Amino acid sequence: MNETRYDWLGDRWVIFAPNRILRPDNYRDPSRPKPNLTSLAPTDRITDEQCPFCSGHEQQTPPPTLVLKTPSAHDWSVRVVPNKFPAFDSANESPLCTAPHCTSTNNSELFLRKQTRGGHEVIIEAPNHIQSITQLPTEHAALIFEAYQERLRYWRSVHAMRYAVVFKNNGADAGASLVHAHSQLICTDFLPTDVLKTQLRSNEYFQSHRRCYACDVLEKEIQASQRIVAQTDSFVALCPFASRLPYSVSILPIEHQSAFEECSPCQLVELARLVQWTLRSIECEHPQTAYNYVLQTAPLDAHNPAAFHWRLKVLPRLIKVAGFEWSSDCYINTVLPEEAAKALGRHIPTGLSEKSLSQSAIA
Amino acid sequence: MNETRYDWLGDRWVIFAPNRILRPDNYRDPSRPKPNLTSLAPTDRITDEQCPFCSGHEQQTPPPTLVLKTPSAHDWSVRVVPNKFPAFDSANESPLCTAPHCTSTNNSELFLRKQTRGGHEVIIEAPNHIQSITQLPTEHAALIFEAYQERLRYWRSVHAMRYAVVFKNNGADAGASLVHAHSQLICTDFLPTDVLKTQLRSNEYFQSHRRCYACDVLEKEIQASQRIVAQTDSFVALCPFASRLPYSVSILPIEHQSAFEECSPCQLVELARLVQWTLRSIECEHPQTAYNYVLQTAPLDAHNPAAFHWRLKVLPRLIKVAGFEWSSDCYINTVLPEEAAKALGRHIPTGLSEKSLSQSAIA
Repeated sequence: MNETRYDWLGDRWVIFAPNRILRPDNYRDPSRPKPNLTSLAPTDRITDEQCPFCSGHEQQTPPPTLVLKTPSAHDWSVRVVPNKFPAFDSANESPLCTAPHCTSTNNSELFLRKQTRGGHEVIIEAPNHIQSITQLPTEHAALIFEAYQERLRYWRSVHAMRYAVVFKNNGADAGASLVHAHSQLICTDFLPTDVLKTQLRSNEYFQSHRRCYACDVLEKEIQASQRIVAQTDSFVALCPFASRLPYSVSILPIEHQSAFEECSPCQLVELARLVQWTLRSIECEHPQTAYNYVLQTAPLDAHNPAAFHWRLKVLPRLIKVAGFEWSSDCYINTVLPEEAAKALGRHIPTGLSEKSLSQSAIA
Repeated sequence: MNETRYDWLGDRWVIFAPNRILRPDNYRDPSRPKPNLTSLAPTDRITDEQCPFCSGHEQQTPPPTLVLKTPSAHDWSVRVVPNKFPAFDSANESPLCTAPHCTSTNNSELFLRKQTRGGHEVIIEAPNHIQSITQLPTEHAALIFEAYQERLRYWRSVHAMRYAVVFKNNGADAGASLVHAHSQLICTDFLPTDVLKTQLRSNEYFQSHRRCYACDVLEKEIQASQRIVAQTDSFVALCPFASRLPYSVSILPIEHQSAFEECSPCQLVELARLVQWTLRSIECEHPQTAYNYVLQTAPLDAHNPAAFHWRLKVLPRLIKVAGFEWSSDCYINTVLPEEAAKALGRHIPTGLSEKSLSQSAIA
């Protein structure tokens, strides 16, 4: 059974999930000793032919919670399945813990632990063994975002869930264990401290300005234009003013939207195209670079929808986080966002919002 | 000129240091494209023979700020030099900025930036090209910790400095660019938000309990003994109850000490031996694993010495931080600290505190 422990001094919850060591791995370097992370034996590196996400290997994953297909697809295009190696116990399996800090042995203020419940799903983004969603036609990529919407809607309806995030780990340096293009959704019955803090700050800004923080930032960023990577009718991709990692890009709706689920089907296609071009620009500028992206949507709890603005953050993993960052949570970034935006923008075709581009992206 | 920017929503300062891209690199993989991180051209991979830290290459570094030698050393044993590629402008070069948020262009609540001053030094740990301080005699390793003490004392005396930390990046995955065993000291004229928060929580605990938080934790940990890796007369090495990374070890003085500089010369030898054995146990359990260590000492500002307890945290980099962690600052750890302590403890000789062991460690 997994458990979550509280670091009192750091004011952080940490999830302990020993079973995740058993997950299969495409990336393990055979020339290096096999990491001996627990008494459980980690599996060996698996080959591309053994990929559990490929069409024909559906029996290697649990039954899907969602299947979507493009009109031309043979079988399925996007498939959502429960993670076989989840970070915590299923929200559906046993009664939820209701006490704020469920007691286990040796509990005290210094050693708080609780049992957590949640959801952990994998969004398999294509039936063939592609490595990047930039390889997909835009209409197929848009289905991936539709899947995010559907599953977020589902998890919003599950009792006692408090936080949901969709994220992608692409490449070993970004924490991926499998090559096949996929993303993940994690939903928890507690709010991580940092998420709570960001929500409080969003609310605080709204209270004092009667405006959403991100709306104010976007207005100034679009005026100044020096950190904009690309812009379409509904969205903007920009390098944030104080990003922690070089070449980070945030994509936000220009008109205020609180939950990602508010995006219309047309907007999903527009968003998919912008995300594809943003990732292509990173792939062109920094070939073979691992990256994460994270989709931060409105809180699951009752909240002020005017205060929170959803965003998708793309985080290229060009540098390694070092001792100074681990000690202080203060990052040293070697690339000014203005320079990053200029470099990435060069790879984006002009007039990205026009329909014709969607065709060229498909080709 | 470097600058520090504030991420209002994340409540974090980020240091921008474009010049650091120019630093030499032993680790760059020649089979991968050279990262094109700025308009500045990064240097090529350097060979071991070109190592700027080796004896005979002293002219490649700025003049030392401290040189220490063991009685038997020919020339020097430990050499501290200013970092040629510092994270910020020198505390000594120009007048310190005094306004809380020094104004640059386009400043507003949304785009706060300031000029920061600080120190950034490299502690070169041996004249020969060793990769780990576990390869050194304990009396030599103790000199490294003495160098930390001397430089921390110096930076405490520099006007307006507010934060100082010593850290080590060992291996490319831990952010090191050079193989030759070294650590770094960074000192800043501002307190990173996370550091401030930890200080406030330490003070808060002390206010309500009239005891230091770490003293209370240590008492319980030593009693329970299930997370202890090793113990000597003055120090304990343990796997923290809620550590974010697998196999993390924290080393603390058993009797309350606020600043690391309070350690006696005898204790420095004892500490060096314990750190060496802790690192050896990680090297045995996980060969070739990169790691960081960070030495967190008492705040430079006026503070309550009874509330803060110095510690050295060893952070093996066995896993990659992934999208969920980047989104939430909530970590998923696959190894329970109790299991990690048991595994590491097996490599530690019994009776570590006895003098005889210091001899065997040297051999």
